[in-house]
Amino acid sequence: MIDCQVLYRLAETLNERRGAAPDSSYVASLYHKGTDAICKKVAEEAAETIMAAKDENLLHIVRETADLWFHSLVLLTHFGLGPDDVLAELHRREGISGIDEKKSRGQA
Amino acid sequence: MIDCQVLYRLAETLNERRGAAPDSSYVASLYHKGTDAICKKVAEEAAETIMAAKDENLLHIVRETADLWFHSLVLLTHFGLGPDDVLAELHRREGISGIDEKKSRGQA
Amino acid sequence: MIDCQVLYRLAETLNERRGAAPDSSYVASLYHKGTDAICKKVAEEAAETIMAAKDENLLHIVRETADLWFHSLVLLTHFGLGPDDVLAELHRREGISGIDEKKSRGQA
Amino acid sequence: MIDCQVLYRLAETLNERRGAAPDSSYVASLYHKGTDAICKKVAEEAAETIMAAKDENLLHIVRETADLWFHSLVLLTHFGLGPDDVLAELHRREGISGIDEKKSRGQA
Repeated sequence: MIDCQVLYRLAETLNERRGAAPDSSYVASLYHKGTDAICKKVAEEAAETIMAAKDENLLHIVRETADLWFHSLVLLTHFGLGPDDVLAELHRREGISGIDEKKSRGQA
Repeated sequence: MIDCQVLYRLAETLNERRGAAPDSSYVASLYHKGTDAICKKVAEEAAETIMAAKDENLLHIVRETADLWFHSLVLLTHFGLGPDDVLAELHRREGISGIDEKKSRGQA
Repeated sequence: MIDCQVLYRLAETLNERRGAAPDSSYVASLYHKGTDAICKKVAEEAAETIMAAKDENLLHIVRETADLWFHSLVLLTHFGLGPDDVLAELHRREGISGIDEKKSRGQA
Repeated sequence: MIDCQVLYRLAETLNERRGAAPDSSYVASLYHKGTDAICKKVAEEAAETIMAAKDENLLHIVRETADLWFHSLVLLTHFGLGPDDVLAELHRREGISGIDEKKSRGQA
């Protein structure tokens, strides 16, 4: 089991790049372009994850999911949020079965 | 900083539900329906994350990203993978700037 | 070559259902739920089109593309737009190569 | 009401570019890259349509839907299909209410 603190370290690095010059890094340029550009990447990576799954290509599934989580972190930090917010939400739902969870949120 | 082990606990729970009767839980029914049903949920949650971002609704961004990560975990476990695979991939990329990373993968 | 006026007839039917009671038809309920519900369907159908393409299942590609265009029409009519707006835009671009088109819109 | 034959003319142009050198046009390069590249564009354009809808920007909704339909046509022609297949499918469904339609396809 690898150290899942990588999510926090990544968020820290992302936050440092938020104020940086657009051409200083890929992420700085994404922040500079704003919400739509970041959202577009989330959509793209979700689509690529799906295509990797359809190919049953395990390596690609891992890489594309990593891209998806990475760009989710960019989106979260863009809004002053972080992995702790999402992990806390997942923790809050622990012990609630999926069906109960959906019911409790009126989505069943 | 909350305990990020929640991802591992979730994956464990998900794995337990993989063999369960389709009507025993939301997740068991998803596994039973198979890859397309799981992929469709990943696409849906990505779309909802984007819409929450466009609304600048922080609570929704957190919830929808949690849904997106949750269904990513369902997809990973469906293929015998887990959060450690994705976290290891993110760790592998640490220290590589986004632009270098893209270049190294021939995506720049 | 079949009569492509079906897009206009569909838009007309959709417009008639816009004001109808939410439980009177699938489309009336979508309009009633609003923009997010309609957008979610567009995202879903795009994902299903992609999965059909990955399966190289021609029948599914046609059906899912029909679903995608149908829900695009729901979105257009929801905003008081119609197929003529999209067809006029496509017509406007005729004779412009894709590469020139992207350049002219600053996307190259 | 504009001439909806633009869909057929577009499909014809697309088919001419299928065999062309990858660098001869944007579309020729897409065909050359193959199914995944085309699917990725469909996903991207669907995401951009959704974002335009969230912005309630009518001009962008029209442009992004045009992009979405255009790339759907690229996908269709990539598989030897065309707009007539989708329009015939939409025509087949005419007169069937959305709710009945979903029921008849076991999706209700």
